[in-house]
Amino acid sequence: MTLQEFMSLYQQRINQALTQHLPAPHILPVRLHEAMHYAVLNGGKRVRPLLVYLTGQALNVAPDVLDIPACAVECIHAYSLVHDDLPAMDDDDLRRGKPTCHKAFDEATAILAGDALQAHAFYLLTHDPTQQLSPAQRLAMVEALSLASSSRGMVGGQMIDMEAVGKNLNAAELENMHIHKTGALIRASVKLGALASPNFSEETFEQLDRYAKCIGLAFQIQDDILDVEAPTETLGKKQGADTALNKPTYPSIIGLQASKQMAIELIEQAVQALQTFDQRADPLRELAHYIIKRAY
Amino acid sequence: MTLQEFMSLYQQRINQALTQHLPAPHILPVRLHEAMHYAVLNGGKRVRPLLVYLTGQALNVAPDVLDIPACAVECIHAYSLVHDDLPAMDDDDLRRGKPTCHKAFDEATAILAGDALQAHAFYLLTHDPTQQLSPAQRLAMVEALSLASSSRGMVGGQMIDMEAVGKNLNAAELENMHIHKTGALIRASVKLGALASPNFSEETFEQLDRYAKCIGLAFQIQDDILDVEAPTETLGKKQGADTALNKPTYPSIIGLQASKQMAIELIEQAVQALQTFDQRADPLRELAHYIIKRAY
Repeated sequence: MTLQEFMSLYQQRINQALTQHLPAPHILPVRLHEAMHYAVLNGGKRVRPLLVYLTGQALNVAPDVLDIPACAVECIHAYSLVHDDLPAMDDDDLRRGKPTCHKAFDEATAILAGDALQAHAFYLLTHDPTQQLSPAQRLAMVEALSLASSSRGMVGGQMIDMEAVGKNLNAAELENMHIHKTGALIRASVKLGALASPNFSEETFEQLDRYAKCIGLAFQIQDDILDVEAPTETLGKKQGADTALNKPTYPSIIGLQASKQMAIELIEQAVQALQTFDQRADPLRELAHYIIKRAY
Repeated sequence: MTLQEFMSLYQQRINQALTQHLPAPHILPVRLHEAMHYAVLNGGKRVRPLLVYLTGQALNVAPDVLDIPACAVECIHAYSLVHDDLPAMDDDDLRRGKPTCHKAFDEATAILAGDALQAHAFYLLTHDPTQQLSPAQRLAMVEALSLASSSRGMVGGQMIDMEAVGKNLNAAELENMHIHKTGALIRASVKLGALASPNFSEETFEQLDRYAKCIGLAFQIQDDILDVEAPTETLGKKQGADTALNKPTYPSIIGLQASKQMAIELIEQAVQALQTFDQRADPLRELAHYIIKRAY
């Protein structure tokens, strides 16, 4: 199977799993559950669930064991987008070409939908319909995901991002922001996939974590590059939006060519980290390359 | 020891535990961690942690085993207040006589501090410094707390509350709102205290849950009564604030005297639910009575 086929397969799988594992939209309060579905089932690329599935696959874990962890990570990601788009934050009207949650509903509903999605992510991890994951494994997943979502992870990164608007960051400060803002959850996705395996060595985990760190940063650099280069209709948000907000980006700090070079080097390091893995890790390797080739 | 002495003891204990178990305010991003401390260490009454401690005490659990669950519940409560106070929600400037988090900091910081406190609550539950709680017990705590915090619990209740502004609710609809908005977390507090016990029967749990349901609703009715009767300086927020917001309250729907009578009956039912418990449950019984005697 090619990476594209895996991506399509797992996108279908995660969309189905998310529909199944979110509280149904007809449950009261209806408007809140509708907003949660709107925020989650929005045609996202599902990079984080894909990482959960592909990491599990590299360690021989069956996909059905990975459905819940994949849903949990995506709930956290979806909630973070809803809150990041709020007027008090990035004040975005469009997300993937559609009205953002607070535009489609209202601000209070968007805040609450985000809050509820976060709670739901952790609730999901406490259950395992396949009965393959021990309480200790599920608890370790809660630990990894909550730390990645915390003030020392994703939310901390969003705070650094808010504080950086209009400021001159250097490359190290920008990297620190991204390591938290997007990197933490990408690393958690890989970690959850690994934790679903009944036994993996510390060395295996460190290799996977190095892979995740590298692709996480490369992913963000590519986002910055696309913000400069891609047209609005492909991007699903306004082209140059970050630059217009006076947000520091890799192209604005180290230049466009150096940004592209840095992304390429990180992808090489990511693939290097997986060198002792067999062919079951091929989709992870291909995903690394895909990250800097993607157009949106 | 009297209830007042227990309350004072456990308030000191929880404030110390919260200070210890929150990320230190000097950790980056400093402003975010300062906002988290501001939101949590604000002189609250600590009713929910008190319920964790007193329930554990009724089941012979040592207080140090209860510190983490008590902190986790209070982090969730504190985050919910920060988000409820936001301009898009209740738009409150004062909380316990001090500027609300978004007034003391700013709106983006308040949203993120709330988000981070929620993640931190679940992170806390994954650790047990006393090594007395099994992974299965800690996972059950995550399950109870995340469900209570979800769209089917506290956040759902806040959504019902937002949708009720300016509408005529009947008593059943008002009760449904409170069962979610405040009741869910109060029940979770008692459940976390019970889950810290290595073995408790389903019957014991059901008795405690009935107790929690009754005091949770009585607590909210008393809040509504105080909103009508207590002066602003005692309340720490504007007297009549809920009435001014055109929010349905028990006094406005069933009348002040009937509200007081209902609170008294609920407290009697709460105490009744604990009749097979020994004297170690006395502080829980006294707490029930205290709820409708408190002046703020």
